[in-house]
Amino acid sequence: MKSGILYIMVLWAMPVIAQHKIPVYLDVTKPIEERVESALSLMTTEEKVALCHAQSKFSSKGVARLGIPEVWSTDGPHGIREEVLWDEWSGAQWTNDSCTAFPALTCLAATFNTDLSRLYGVSIGEEARYRNKTILLGPGVNIYRTPLNGRNFEYMGEDPYLASRMVVPYIQGVQSAGVAACVKHFALNNQEVWRGHINVHVSDRALHEIYLPAFKAAVQEGNVWSVMGAYNQFRGEHCCHNDLLLNKILKQDWGFDGLVISDWGGVHNTDQAVNNGLDIEMGTYTNGLTTSGHFPYSSYYLANPFLKGIEEGKYDTDVLDDKARRILRVIFRTTMRADRPFGKFVSPEHSKAARKIAQEGIVLLKNKGQFFPVPVDKYKKIAVIGENASRSLVIGGGSSSLKAAYEVSPLQGLKDKYGEERIVHSLGYASGPSLYGREEPSGLDTDSLRTAAVEVAKSADIVLFIGGLNKNHYQDCEGGDRRSMDLPFEQDKLIRDVLKVNKNTAVILLSGNAVSMPWANKVPAIMQGWYLGSEAGNALTDIVSGDVNPSGKLPFSFPEKLEDNGAHFYGELSYPGDSTDQFYKEDILVGYRWFDTKKIKPLFPFGYGLSYTSFAYDNLATDKTQYSDKETVKVSFTLTNSGRSDGAEVPQLYAGKSKSEVPRAAKELKAFKKVYLKAGERKEVELEVPIGSLAYYDGNRSNWVVEPGTYTLMLGSSSGDIKAEVNLKIE
Amino acid sequence: MKSGILYIMVLWAMPVIAQHKIPVYLDVTKPIEERVESALSLMTTEEKVALCHAQSKFSSKGVARLGIPEVWSTDGPHGIREEVLWDEWSGAQWTNDSCTAFPALTCLAATFNTDLSRLYGVSIGEEARYRNKTILLGPGVNIYRTPLNGRNFEYMGEDPYLASRMVVPYIQGVQSAGVAACVKHFALNNQEVWRGHINVHVSDRALHEIYLPAFKAAVQEGNVWSVMGAYNQFRGEHCCHNDLLLNKILKQDWGFDGLVISDWGGVHNTDQAVNNGLDIEMGTYTNGLTTSGHFPYSSYYLANPFLKGIEEGKYDTDVLDDKARRILRVIFRTTMRADRPFGKFVSPEHSKAARKIAQEGIVLLKNKGQFFPVPVDKYKKIAVIGENASRSLVIGGGSSSLKAAYEVSPLQGLKDKYGEERIVHSLGYASGPSLYGREEPSGLDTDSLRTAAVEVAKSADIVLFIGGLNKNHYQDCEGGDRRSMDLPFEQDKLIRDVLKVNKNTAVILLSGNAVSMPWANKVPAIMQGWYLGSEAGNALTDIVSGDVNPSGKLPFSFPEKLEDNGAHFYGELSYPGDSTDQFYKEDILVGYRWFDTKKIKPLFPFGYGLSYTSFAYDNLATDKTQYSDKETVKVSFTLTNSGRSDGAEVPQLYAGKSKSEVPRAAKELKAFKKVYLKAGERKEVELEVPIGSLAYYDGNRSNWVVEPGTYTLMLGSSSGDIKAEVNLKIE
Repeated sequence: MKSGILYIMVLWAMPVIAQHKIPVYLDVTKPIEERVESALSLMTTEEKVALCHAQSKFSSKGVARLGIPEVWSTDGPHGIREEVLWDEWSGAQWTNDSCTAFPALTCLAATFNTDLSRLYGVSIGEEARYRNKTILLGPGVNIYRTPLNGRNFEYMGEDPYLASRMVVPYIQGVQSAGVAACVKHFALNNQEVWRGHINVHVSDRALHEIYLPAFKAAVQEGNVWSVMGAYNQFRGEHCCHNDLLLNKILKQDWGFDGLVISDWGGVHNTDQAVNNGLDIEMGTYTNGLTTSGHFPYSSYYLANPFLKGIEEGKYDTDVLDDKARRILRVIFRTTMRADRPFGKFVSPEHSKAARKIAQEGIVLLKNKGQFFPVPVDKYKKIAVIGENASRSLVIGGGSSSLKAAYEVSPLQGLKDKYGEERIVHSLGYASGPSLYGREEPSGLDTDSLRTAAVEVAKSADIVLFIGGLNKNHYQDCEGGDRRSMDLPFEQDKLIRDVLKVNKNTAVILLSGNAVSMPWANKVPAIMQGWYLGSEAGNALTDIVSGDVNPSGKLPFSFPEKLEDNGAHFYGELSYPGDSTDQFYKEDILVGYRWFDTKKIKPLFPFGYGLSYTSFAYDNLATDKTQYSDKETVKVSFTLTNSGRSDGAEVPQLYAGKSKSEVPRAAKELKAFKKVYLKAGERKEVELEVPIGSLAYYDGNRSNWVVEPGTYTLMLGSSSGDIKAEVNLKIE
Repeated sequence: MKSGILYIMVLWAMPVIAQHKIPVYLDVTKPIEERVESALSLMTTEEKVALCHAQSKFSSKGVARLGIPEVWSTDGPHGIREEVLWDEWSGAQWTNDSCTAFPALTCLAATFNTDLSRLYGVSIGEEARYRNKTILLGPGVNIYRTPLNGRNFEYMGEDPYLASRMVVPYIQGVQSAGVAACVKHFALNNQEVWRGHINVHVSDRALHEIYLPAFKAAVQEGNVWSVMGAYNQFRGEHCCHNDLLLNKILKQDWGFDGLVISDWGGVHNTDQAVNNGLDIEMGTYTNGLTTSGHFPYSSYYLANPFLKGIEEGKYDTDVLDDKARRILRVIFRTTMRADRPFGKFVSPEHSKAARKIAQEGIVLLKNKGQFFPVPVDKYKKIAVIGENASRSLVIGGGSSSLKAAYEVSPLQGLKDKYGEERIVHSLGYASGPSLYGREEPSGLDTDSLRTAAVEVAKSADIVLFIGGLNKNHYQDCEGGDRRSMDLPFEQDKLIRDVLKVNKNTAVILLSGNAVSMPWANKVPAIMQGWYLGSEAGNALTDIVSGDVNPSGKLPFSFPEKLEDNGAHFYGELSYPGDSTDQFYKEDILVGYRWFDTKKIKPLFPFGYGLSYTSFAYDNLATDKTQYSDKETVKVSFTLTNSGRSDGAEVPQLYAGKSKSEVPRAAKELKAFKKVYLKAGERKEVELEVPIGSLAYYDGNRSNWVVEPGTYTLMLGSSSGDIKAEVNLKIE
């Protein structure tokens, strides 16, 4: 007994003494890779597997015994989602989680302002940090292929270059707050119809030229720390465990060292989940409109089946270590980093950011007779008609739905500016509550609402129609696509009836998608707003009143009609597919590439947007006329604010090659810059185009090819309004 | 319009540029007081008021817009409580919150080992940190005044010196993990009966000598960052807003600069809550056994009524600023401190700590014929009888109830050590489930359970009876006191019946309180275990088997009968009061001070505990014979392990003064030390007694007085076993 007692006493006394020895993984002064290896060396196989799958709706395990925190994710890209119950989608009824709602990413893209993208990222990153989140599930950069896609509002438009430039500072901003951005949905989740299984077929060239560049920029320039896989299949494998996309392109070719997380319920197979590049599996069995009961997280594909496979030697331990390393890396970059900032939540700075982004994203599409701006004292009675004037547009839409701290409606914003007494409001139509999965409009009588609105319009000096889409199912909403490009809820009829009694009617559309506008040439003014977030009404009123000069540009084309769009031209196998397979037959000709190449005039082209002032372009020149493939073209021109008010313009530089060994789009965006000019001011503007960016992707050689010959650079204020051209030669 | 647009553009552009300027409160390199003032200067009155009351069951607001985190509290003090719903006591059904259950604080006190107190604090602090808590609601240091108090198990015994020595390192340990300890319940919450309103009357002398020293040590030596007010009243004011206790003693006299938080539902009055030293109000309207519905936090005493009073000039803004400062100070010391450690949760180190503390806290009370230790191979059949052998004892007891990651029962521990085949178990009695508020034992048939147990005992070589109290209502449980000192559930009868058939019966009591033992001289061995936490069965088996030599000492006296206890001697007005008032008539003579002064022999005295070895005390001496009041007595003696096994002893030094100008206790503990000695080893031991610690508190002069004259220092192995004495003189 004697020595036994002594032995135990000595043993037990040790932890007291050894309290201050810090292992490498806890030492924030050590390089992250050393910390990762230190932690990994201390972990059991079970602990590593536990990192790789959910433990609740939005979290996955850390290593509690080692003090390595859990990974908490949060939707979405537009604001920090409310807290939900551990294993239910239902809100947890907390009262501290009402966030700042930022404008939708389509609006951000429409600013064409990379500084604002950084501001957006910093702001939402700070909100995520304050709420103790590890990963912000955004931004989304799936390419806008069809106006029917229910989730376009969460993405950055139809152009891979624009999306690339906008996504990088967003990511850098979020991550500066100590929170991992998560670029999504990788890749080709370009429609919501059959998203869970549709098998996308697309050429290597279109994949690399159109659908991947924004992801590549996110990884290589934004250094994004996490990537979310898509629901759909690509060439027969689900994207959440797709060898080509995840292992080959993302991790091997691009050198991505962060983690791949599945979309919720996007995992379907253990072998593939283990071997094809997924790192964290979320939401398995629980995806869908409603869930009930509790599913065992231990039965996830990357839980016990993975562990069993490791133990049986079926799966290599290297593949497990690789996943664990990637997850640890993200933890050490976020929750366990040195000097993690503290973030903040619903701050005035965030409101200002939201308002600024909304202001700069609003696009003036038509302004006959200078309908806008509407001076404050000019009219005695302004009729505001349409449900979107007063409807909450931060609620709904699926996972990006927000519990916002506040939301200033357009109606409120206008009342605050113009005075309650000048504003009369009439719904005009009603769409029913924002119930996810709800298909039918409400039982409200459309005819009587319309009649009432027409009466109001009749006696007003001007009418501001504020409609568009909303975030109900089959509108701008996850989980389903729109059924047509038309405005819903009989708005076209309402607009026509209003116009019959009052010609001074401007249409303001709030939506995340293009709509058909059969009344477009009958109204004096059209404004494209978006889902503008908490500051919607203030920002819109800033533009309407002229306190701020509009400077937004369309991040996607508005076709006259759906069939004009490239994705719809080739019929159902191209969109939406036959429920099993889908073929992107328009190939690289997405968006304006299609319209311009096929010489189809869109209603409003990509890059288009008016100002209350006017701009003149002069003196377009390049620094040389001939370049080698490693050089960069320096393009210069003079931009003049030729109107009477201060404002901002976005000169856009497109490139084309009329004679080519491969089919080419008529033009492709290669550079842009938002330029602020006082009334009358002139500025020399420089843009750069690396010759490498003129390359096409050669699917046969799996490589980018800079074809020699003559290229044309086109400078314009939109893809449809080229002001000047200049040629250059590549040797 | 022109200048308007420009103005707004410049204004909006600023946040982008100013991103990297860090305000002082966010600069972790700045002194905390500067950060506090910086934050305070940026806050509105509403924001300051919002700091001062709950927003949910366990949290209060930070300042979201400034990035100042919310304050999240957790019970406390034996492990980290499970997550509950936002506004309900019900568990949130998370699966990541099963903690390490540490031994109850009575057990910690019984170790008489300050190193273990630090280890306890560090360990539980790390668990709180991993769970992202700001404040750990513990430790509790209310003085053990009566064995009936339902919450004694959460406290550190009857002696103010012992509690003081043990509480300091616990606090330092917790706070080293970046979590605020919260010493509670300040003060005089020494019973659960009528705790919400009973008005305690106690002399200034007893207050300062008995009931406050552990709190004072917590503040002045432990530098505790938060203090919880008590439910009861003291001299007509509730302790959560008691001017004397909070403003005068705690904050003014002791210089406490942290925050005072109310016990949940302990606030009753806005004027007092504002002016009498409370900083954060929690749980108002929601205290009680069951709650339903949602109460508006905005109607809390320190919410809108406070704000209104400030706005109307009824309350001074200084008092609001003081509260806000204190709360901010705690936030900057915890969640916003530089290099906050990461903590860890359910680690093997924490299990080891829990086991070690449990081992050292177990007290061997009787061991006739060396019943213990029980060698592994000696007996073929060991009967384990009693519900506590297999019952969960981490569940129940009120707010300290835990959802433990695991709990090794005594039965399991014994089976693991002695082999399943040697152990037979019989319940003997059954107490019903641990339902808070449940009074009645279950419907299980006591007679048949007893009969079955006696049958099992009959055929066994030895019997280990493992009973005691449990954490049902009216046992060791918050919200009610015990109805008698007797063992419940007819255990006395069961023990007697077992003894009739098997004399080789040892009684092991698991409880947080003393019980009467009418069978004490009939059993060969008695062991006092406690609520031992996750490692209960392992630790108990370590002692039973002799793998570890017992070294625990009783932190409170075990009286023969309830009436022997000082609090009960003077009848109902002394305990429990008349439902309105209560008078602590025994004054300073609490615990052993009562027994020894009144010459009442307790069943087992304070400080008592046997070992498997024996110890000899020799050569007691002081460095001098005469001292001035600023000096420190250096006491030395020789301690010898005179037995055959390694072990630890706790020599205790008491002081007394036979001739005094005031009534004195026969002896008071002034120093102790846990000393480890190998078999046969001899050690010189030094203890120090500052002369100031011999002072009495003079209520008339509100001051401590060192009375000149002769004092006796008594060295013993318990308060009842004095080995040697030495006199000294104070000039």
